[in-house]
Amino acid sequence: MSQIVSLHLRPRYAETDQMGIVYYANYLVWFECGRSEYMRAVGMPYTELESRGYYFPVTAFQGRLTASAHYDEEIVVHTRVQELKSRQLCYAYEVTRQEQLLASGTTTHMCVNDQQRPVRFPQWLLDGLSV
Amino acid sequence: MSQIVSLHLRPRYAETDQMGIVYYANYLVWFECGRSEYMRAVGMPYTELESRGYYFPVTAFQGRLTASAHYDEEIVVHTRVQELKSRQLCYAYEVTRQEQLLASGTTTHMCVNDQQRPVRFPQWLLDGLSV
Amino acid sequence: MSQIVSLHLRPRYAETDQMGIVYYANYLVWFECGRSEYMRAVGMPYTELESRGYYFPVTAFQGRLTASAHYDEEIVVHTRVQELKSRQLCYAYEVTRQEQLLASGTTTHMCVNDQQRPVRFPQWLLDGLSV
Amino acid sequence: MSQIVSLHLRPRYAETDQMGIVYYANYLVWFECGRSEYMRAVGMPYTELESRGYYFPVTAFQGRLTASAHYDEEIVVHTRVQELKSRQLCYAYEVTRQEQLLASGTTTHMCVNDQQRPVRFPQWLLDGLSV
Repeated sequence: MSQIVSLHLRPRYAETDQMGIVYYANYLVWFECGRSEYMRAVGMPYTELESRGYYFPVTAFQGRLTASAHYDEEIVVHTRVQELKSRQLCYAYEVTRQEQLLASGTTTHMCVNDQQRPVRFPQWLLDGLSV
Repeated sequence: MSQIVSLHLRPRYAETDQMGIVYYANYLVWFECGRSEYMRAVGMPYTELESRGYYFPVTAFQGRLTASAHYDEEIVVHTRVQELKSRQLCYAYEVTRQEQLLASGTTTHMCVNDQQRPVRFPQWLLDGLSV
Repeated sequence: MSQIVSLHLRPRYAETDQMGIVYYANYLVWFECGRSEYMRAVGMPYTELESRGYYFPVTAFQGRLTASAHYDEEIVVHTRVQELKSRQLCYAYEVTRQEQLLASGTTTHMCVNDQQRPVRFPQWLLDGLSV
Repeated sequence: MSQIVSLHLRPRYAETDQMGIVYYANYLVWFECGRSEYMRAVGMPYTELESRGYYFPVTAFQGRLTASAHYDEEIVVHTRVQELKSRQLCYAYEVTRQEQLLASGTTTHMCVNDQQRPVRFPQWLLDGLSV
């Protein structure tokens, strides 16, 4: 569970606001990009999980912003799995520019099937994430 | 087809960019809010159309921006049906602040069923829109 | 500090995702709409605060999602000030549909001047919020 | 003016809607990412242009969507300058997946200075773009 996957991105003009910095909700979008990349890196991309009928809606999130990101900077989103239970998956994220920490946060997810009923995370997914 | 439906909104902070104005892609979002309100006003809200298995993806859009919108201003989106054929529906929009025109544009839509196959617009929808 | 201000909104099509629910980052956008409305209600709209040279970037946020919101539902965002210090302002939010709680959360803000230097919240703002 | 600059991206979950496809306004965001990359490629990134006091708000846009994009696909945005006058700059875009054309469009821009007054595009910018 200690693997960290990095995603590089540049803030889009669309993501800035009139303070001249990245609007705060976009950190949650970047967190999503981070975990997408994480799941691809561990061989279980969301597209494949969804095609098997598993979805992972967010049940909680939190973030702490310590410095502002700006348009077109070179940003890295570092993602890891922080906690993994049969009914709860938690990712942790750090957002950096150069070596400076801009933001950190977590998202917590449940697993639902294609009828949107809560189910346990399938064992092969738990196995795949905990290696 | 000459009915015009008005929707009032205030630009969100999220919708501004570092130029201090509303980011241009948000006009397409406002157009969508406008036609949602239009369809509700004529008694055929999208939720109901979708529950009957009809969806209306955009096939073309265009817009012209003549003045900038800013955070928290009182904006009105005026929507009407501009053209209505068996396989093509076109809405026209005007975005105003006070009486000033800020933007105008159109969106063109096709009709697809719940297998995402293109179909004709159902007759009751054509009838409902052309009154 | 016990005032609660309510804002009514309908989720936009743009705010849904392919799970058929409102994408989670939009709760932070709705929180922003909620506090905009709050500040207007207490007579200190952000536009005026910013024109005096005060800005309120987010330093932390968190949310808990207990049920999904969907396109075009009637949603209410309830906003109140949870904590108010000379250098830190915290809002609390509840998002409901009918009487059902969909989401709750908080955002924490600092105050910066127009050179983006951290400053104390001006006394008149503290006074205005704590009535 | 015949240079074409390509930008690779994967649609974000945030960019999908409940039809299961990329929401149409995001094509305008991708167009912006395309022209950002274009300007970087020709040695005049927007960050530098803005630091010199030049801004390029959109005055018109249009797009045609011929096939849907989906979450996490490999998308390419191809950007070129279509027209360049002293007071008007027009970019053209094509969005492809594999070799399939998904969308095409244009954006038209004016040049404003840091007081938001319309000005001519500076000669060095015209020269840089027309090589």
